[in-house]
Amino acid sequence: MFDESSNEKNRSVRAVSKSEARITGISRETLIGLHETEGVGRISIAAILLSGALKGKGSLRHSSDFLAGDWRDMGLSPRQAAAVVANLSAEATEARYRRHESRDMQVVTYLDENYPKLLRKISDPPWVLYYKGNWELVHYPAIAIVGTRLATGYGRKMSEDIAAGCAKRMTVVSGLARGIDAAAHAGALRAACGTIAVLAGGVDYCYPPENKALYRDLSIHGLILSESPPDTILRPGLFPLRNRIIAGLSYGVIVVEAAQRSGALITADLALGYDRDIFVVPGQVTSPRSKGALEYFRKGANPVLDETDIFQAYSHRLPLQAMPRTVETDSPDAHPMPVDLTPDENRIYDILLDQPCSIDELTIQSGMTFGHLHSVLLSLLIKRRIHQQPGSVYNVL
Amino acid sequence: MFDESSNEKNRSVRAVSKSEARITGISRETLIGLHETEGVGRISIAAILLSGALKGKGSLRHSSDFLAGDWRDMGLSPRQAAAVVANLSAEATEARYRRHESRDMQVVTYLDENYPKLLRKISDPPWVLYYKGNWELVHYPAIAIVGTRLATGYGRKMSEDIAAGCAKRMTVVSGLARGIDAAAHAGALRAACGTIAVLAGGVDYCYPPENKALYRDLSIHGLILSESPPDTILRPGLFPLRNRIIAGLSYGVIVVEAAQRSGALITADLALGYDRDIFVVPGQVTSPRSKGALEYFRKGANPVLDETDIFQAYSHRLPLQAMPRTVETDSPDAHPMPVDLTPDENRIYDILLDQPCSIDELTIQSGMTFGHLHSVLLSLLIKRRIHQQPGSVYNVL
Repeated sequence: MFDESSNEKNRSVRAVSKSEARITGISRETLIGLHETEGVGRISIAAILLSGALKGKGSLRHSSDFLAGDWRDMGLSPRQAAAVVANLSAEATEARYRRHESRDMQVVTYLDENYPKLLRKISDPPWVLYYKGNWELVHYPAIAIVGTRLATGYGRKMSEDIAAGCAKRMTVVSGLARGIDAAAHAGALRAACGTIAVLAGGVDYCYPPENKALYRDLSIHGLILSESPPDTILRPGLFPLRNRIIAGLSYGVIVVEAAQRSGALITADLALGYDRDIFVVPGQVTSPRSKGALEYFRKGANPVLDETDIFQAYSHRLPLQAMPRTVETDSPDAHPMPVDLTPDENRIYDILLDQPCSIDELTIQSGMTFGHLHSVLLSLLIKRRIHQQPGSVYNVL
Repeated sequence: MFDESSNEKNRSVRAVSKSEARITGISRETLIGLHETEGVGRISIAAILLSGALKGKGSLRHSSDFLAGDWRDMGLSPRQAAAVVANLSAEATEARYRRHESRDMQVVTYLDENYPKLLRKISDPPWVLYYKGNWELVHYPAIAIVGTRLATGYGRKMSEDIAAGCAKRMTVVSGLARGIDAAAHAGALRAACGTIAVLAGGVDYCYPPENKALYRDLSIHGLILSESPPDTILRPGLFPLRNRIIAGLSYGVIVVEAAQRSGALITADLALGYDRDIFVVPGQVTSPRSKGALEYFRKGANPVLDETDIFQAYSHRLPLQAMPRTVETDSPDAHPMPVDLTPDENRIYDILLDQPCSIDELTIQSGMTFGHLHSVLLSLLIKRRIHQQPGSVYNVL
């Protein structure tokens, strides 16, 4: 495996590597390798992370040493297993790292402490994120602004104005598309809390090409991130996946202008599914460009006239003052992100605080079903709150 | 006094007169006379109705026989008292009745059972209403539509469309002004539940004159009502008073389009004060014609795209089916309006159901302050639920 200490830029990688020795199960490099293996998708990775087989293996050997048979045990097909083994070799891992470095992109995984806190809470979080720009922006309170690519002048003006206002105290998240997205990024770019563009393709490729200048500005003054590895070929299916990240990063989603069946509404629907707020900028009921947006009023969306409506909605969650633009610091722990535990995770954690327990003992003490307990333990393992000893005995870290 | 049985058309007057003998205190004819006496305003009449002196007198003599001294005892100035006595003479009363008849207008007072139920609940109800057209409309669930006189094409279209939709199940109330009001009346006029125009001036005079055709249609197919007696000279102060009636008649107020400081917003503010709902038709945030309306979103107004939003808001209060247009019936009791009692009124009523009580006994039994008990008793008297005997002893009717 490549020597991580040689990566002077990628502080987040180094920060995580320090604590990695303490983690059982999969490593972040393995997770990146899985994510970048052709034919291994998000669902396969989730199955691996949820696989009981992983725990037994992880406590004995490093995941990069797993053989094809190990991967098949965790649910991969023979073809997938062979591809994974090849892609986790020292040479492939080194090549992967060099490719990220040559494109000037950084990587954050679900296993890292600096993974975005709100994004971790969605039901289908991305396992790996690639980025260019200022990663600290993901730790600010965030609001998404979405809408049609075929925006009217009114829509573009509202998007830009509301984004400029919101970005005084919140990071504005959007998708770098034409129309509403581009106007939102442009409005927020120079404000205190800046703006994040989530791309469907790799962060090394600007799509649509007409937003090249904006893309360049965002990579310097903002943040560009994506779930897609470098050289990903754009396909329509990637856009809804991208939209879930826009929704997942944000307290709420502002829909500025969207026709019925507009792609922007996918983001709004996902946000509803993640229990995030929807805001709608009023427009004329008779305008086809507003019809899709306005219908969210019937699903409980709140009207927004300017940023004060957003600040009002989050008055209890926002700092009182406008945020100063964060200067990148040298310490990788400058923004430690405490990981919240669910009530069930807390219960199991409390039991293990007393003494190490086997999964059988935990089943009895917690009264949880085996399946549920299993997923709670996996989550605690991923959050590095507990450690799995041989024989499926768990203790707190 | 004029012979009421000669008024074949005015069934509501006859209906009330039958039960009038049972009422102590002021009669409806006296109330109309007071209301039409120059220099005696709404506040003076409220003071008379609240006057303790009235009760003692009312149980002994008919209010049309009161002398100037009696009126002065009830708080009128000597000049007001003299004017009232003159205006309550048999001749003046007869002339007043003839004037109403010659203008083809009907009269309903606060003392009448067919007074609009929701309007009775506001803090400053009109004591007398004059009308032309179909009075039954006031007994339907009602929704007000208001907005700027300087409406855009968008605003007029939305007003007309929403009014037409709402009037399938609710009566649409507006003010016959230019712009939004006129469009609302036009949209609702032929629908099942029709439309009510509340005028600032007398119902015998069409203002603004350009709405003459609409006025004529409303007097045949809808209802035109006003607090102003015939021959009232229009003055700016009458419009806010008119607006309180629009708000008071209605479950809620839809603001279609209104600039900041638009007169239509007075109606919305009054509705908020009466604890009625506000609805706003979305428009462009950048349009000066929408600015005043959209700001009600910040006061809790609900967005309305079409009538379904209104029906949804009142689903528990509206009949399931669209209302058939009511044909006028011969029976004055076709739509008896039970008058609701407040919890305090119910308490006093229940005590009096057992046996007649003096006000001192009621003070002890109810535990209410004298002042509050006083106003509860007055309200029960006005609602004809109790009777005051000599010596301030009360019994139920």
